[in-house]
Amino acid sequence: MSGLRVAVLASGTGTNLQAILDTVHGRDGIEVVAVGSDKPTARALARARDAGVETAVFRAADYPDRAARDEAMADWLAERGVELVVLAGYMQLLTPGFIRRFPNRIINVHPALLPSFPGLDAIGQALAHGVRVTGVTVHFVDEGVDTGPIILQRAVPVPDSRDRAELEEAIHAVEHELLPEAVRLIAAGRVTIDPANPRLVLIAPAAK
Amino acid sequence: MSGLRVAVLASGTGTNLQAILDTVHGRDGIEVVAVGSDKPTARALARARDAGVETAVFRAADYPDRAARDEAMADWLAERGVELVVLAGYMQLLTPGFIRRFPNRIINVHPALLPSFPGLDAIGQALAHGVRVTGVTVHFVDEGVDTGPIILQRAVPVPDSRDRAELEEAIHAVEHELLPEAVRLIAAGRVTIDPANPRLVLIAPAAK
Repeated sequence: MSGLRVAVLASGTGTNLQAILDTVHGRDGIEVVAVGSDKPTARALARARDAGVETAVFRAADYPDRAARDEAMADWLAERGVELVVLAGYMQLLTPGFIRRFPNRIINVHPALLPSFPGLDAIGQALAHGVRVTGVTVHFVDEGVDTGPIILQRAVPVPDSRDRAELEEAIHAVEHELLPEAVRLIAAGRVTIDPANPRLVLIAPAAK
Repeated sequence: MSGLRVAVLASGTGTNLQAILDTVHGRDGIEVVAVGSDKPTARALARARDAGVETAVFRAADYPDRAARDEAMADWLAERGVELVVLAGYMQLLTPGFIRRFPNRIINVHPALLPSFPGLDAIGQALAHGVRVTGVTVHFVDEGVDTGPIILQRAVPVPDSRDRAELEEAIHAVEHELLPEAVRLIAAGRVTIDPANPRLVLIAPAAK
């Protein structure tokens, strides 16, 4: 089992970052070496600093366009030897140029069972549609919106009350397990894209 | 708890019909009073006859068009006092005229977690997309393809092997539980459409 240099991009409170810091950072050679954000006030940045992880802010307003912003961010990550980019509540669409810098090396966590409810407010979409089961997906990021190959999924029942706060809490709890699990599997070399079908992610059994 | 006169429409082997005959027919006032098919060779018809249930075949070739076929079928069901029409592997799209004859009184079982993978070969669609979780949906039938309000859903994990036969078996086993459960809930008067939102199905708690 080899190590893995991980970056996390986050726009918000950073609870998924915290789950990664608490459960995989510093274990089995996995190191979170960089945390980036588009928002200087993101609580994720404070969480990173508390864990001794280097941070940087890439604000849209500081660059002529999205491509320039993403290029600066990709350079910053590449300089730190980042091998896996984890989107953990990062609310910006990445440009194709950024995605090509980290081919099949960017993962995202989405609060629905894709392909249902891609895009913004997946939990609200699921409640409005009236589903009885939703869930969480961890997937590789491609140039579409939440369309990349699926690594892990777990179902979450919608409470009979359809109470949004209750469903959000249940989904976030699953995110906090599934995203670190995906990082662990990737670090262990167990995750590959099927050479015969780029839609399919293969997960090798654990070594005995 | 009042009774319910149920019809089942099926095109194939009729295993979902059999599950209904075995687990809800003749209990709590629920009676399967009619089984219809578009195919004279459907095994579902033999299962119905074995259970003493009246059957009829409505072949497309025997009518000038789909509307006429569905009108004859609706007449046949109405004459038998049918209060709930259950689609159990019925492979024909129902015409709007038929659906209006049984408003919110037609249910379908679909082998995926809608809104993912509507239409034909939902299991094949799920395998091709590379999902890790799929499942079963029971929903009211509206004029769209698998778009009606969702009554019940249950998740089914995709086996790591992605073996189609294994996944089909797991999904069919869940169908055989979820479809009878929906019939029981409807017969017990516990299923209503939210008056404030026609997308949402409300399920009342069981009486104490």
